[in-house]
Amino acid sequence: MWIVPERVIADLMTREAAFDAVEQVFAAMAAGAARNFPVVREALGHEDALYGFKGGFDGAGQVLGLKAGGYWPHNMDRRGLINHQSTVFLFDPDTGQPTAMVGGNLLTALRTAAASSVSIRHLARPDARVLGMIGAGHQATFQLRAALEQRPFEKVIAWNRSATRLDSLRVVAEEAGVPFESVPLEGMREADVIVTITSAFAPSLLADHVSDGTHIACMGTDTVGKQEVESSLLGRATVFTDEVAQSVTIGEAQHAVAEGLIRAANITPLGAVINGTRPGRVSDRQITLFDGTGVGLQDLAVASAVVDRAIAQGIAIEVEF
Amino acid sequence: MWIVPERVIADLMTREAAFDAVEQVFAAMAAGAARNFPVVREALGHEDALYGFKGGFDGAGQVLGLKAGGYWPHNMDRRGLINHQSTVFLFDPDTGQPTAMVGGNLLTALRTAAASSVSIRHLARPDARVLGMIGAGHQATFQLRAALEQRPFEKVIAWNRSATRLDSLRVVAEEAGVPFESVPLEGMREADVIVTITSAFAPSLLADHVSDGTHIACMGTDTVGKQEVESSLLGRATVFTDEVAQSVTIGEAQHAVAEGLIRAANITPLGAVINGTRPGRVSDRQITLFDGTGVGLQDLAVASAVVDRAIAQGIAIEVEF
Repeated sequence: MWIVPERVIADLMTREAAFDAVEQVFAAMAAGAARNFPVVREALGHEDALYGFKGGFDGAGQVLGLKAGGYWPHNMDRRGLINHQSTVFLFDPDTGQPTAMVGGNLLTALRTAAASSVSIRHLARPDARVLGMIGAGHQATFQLRAALEQRPFEKVIAWNRSATRLDSLRVVAEEAGVPFESVPLEGMREADVIVTITSAFAPSLLADHVSDGTHIACMGTDTVGKQEVESSLLGRATVFTDEVAQSVTIGEAQHAVAEGLIRAANITPLGAVINGTRPGRVSDRQITLFDGTGVGLQDLAVASAVVDRAIAQGIAIEVEF
Repeated sequence: MWIVPERVIADLMTREAAFDAVEQVFAAMAAGAARNFPVVREALGHEDALYGFKGGFDGAGQVLGLKAGGYWPHNMDRRGLINHQSTVFLFDPDTGQPTAMVGGNLLTALRTAAASSVSIRHLARPDARVLGMIGAGHQATFQLRAALEQRPFEKVIAWNRSATRLDSLRVVAEEAGVPFESVPLEGMREADVIVTITSAFAPSLLADHVSDGTHIACMGTDTVGKQEVESSLLGRATVFTDEVAQSVTIGEAQHAVAEGLIRAANITPLGAVINGTRPGRVSDRQITLFDGTGVGLQDLAVASAVVDRAIAQGIAIEVEF
């Protein structure tokens, strides 16, 4: 039984390894070889915390387990700890015995960034050169770093409700040698790829802010009621997702489905595009939209990859359990 | 972060500690201070395994976490491992950080035995002297050992579909200095307390096999379709349970409820009896029946107790996580 603590993961895990793990598990999900379990998410009635479990089994990669944890909104203020806290537990699918316990905080950020990157790799135009960012929280820097690796972007444009917070994104873009510009929402018409990563309950990006041929990755909506983009944009776009069942209930597509603008049957699992069983982008004028809801199998996939790396590098702690 | 491996638990945990932990958490549940989360239970499509999570939060004891694991039916045949495999993970309810990982196999047996013992303590007649056992699997020996401590029993009578398997119970009874007798089902009329612990899908104990004044603890039914006792027995008895929602859906009461013999509102949480807010046994002629379905909070309660003992005795393994 291996322990990989949170503190060692930053030096162990790469964006490339996270990308490969997430791409593979999306493919396995679409092929029916990997399956997420029902999500448990509970308000504790203590510290205003939300806590739960996201589990799954990837029969292709033989990865079984869960991520447990949640959101403790007073952690930072009261204790100097980050508010999102999670831990991944892996089990031997042959026996049911635990095999690994892995810090899940950084991995969650990396797997979420990897998901939008996988969507850009498979759905953005090859000639995409302008990357748009909506949102400037902690997770936005992860999304930006990962997205920048998928095309030879020549400019990053970004919008946030509070523009002063955009400096964290400016630093990331400039580190990558890419010019950065703060723009109004209308300025997003210049973008070839747009990543939205907010916790909003009302749309900021409207259909009129998006040009034909754009790829949009909506990464912020994971709960009933949240919304990042105008629902008519989904009617105008070809919609892809990590998991259709989540997309239509807690993802960005929930609103367009409720309004009858699209149907679940019109939403394509990104894994099917990866597998080549369903078409991805078919024209340079088409808007593609990836609804990234976040699934437990992503967490298990990156955790399994990090355990392999930790063992190989002699960093994993072995415990006789 | 503490690790308490399966191998050290037999020497650490006592039936008394398990009894106290389960009694306290039943009381907290009934008082509304502790709550089980929705259960996840999935067929993996691999090794014929069932796998899932039982989580909960005890706000009274400040215990948060889950038991993860399940049933791997080929473990023993193929690998010499026990078929039920589970692990308990505890979290700090103030921060969401993991605090302990505990082997759950023996604890599951102890907490299940403790549940029927708690029901006997609170619901059996004080003058109960004959203990009846239905079922003779591995878990039956745990139920018997724990039950024997609750009254000065003078005889154990037992029935199993295959009578040859009763020897394991005979050994336990004789170790405790109590005479043991294998009986036909009709012989159960002599029992003052009956514990059923089978995995049957059809009743063995019929209403006609039970005398007035008996306390019955039905501990085997935890799934839709399973059944240990004739449903009319529940109509005749006063019914108690660990958790009403489970009792009427996956517990022994599912059949009597479906047949209209009892209603959920007629079933009393055992914790309310412990708390003194609802009556338990009110006459020597009354049949009391405890429907023990098994809840995650029981697992967390005994795991938390064992972690405290392991730390106090210097046996817990500390890992910087």
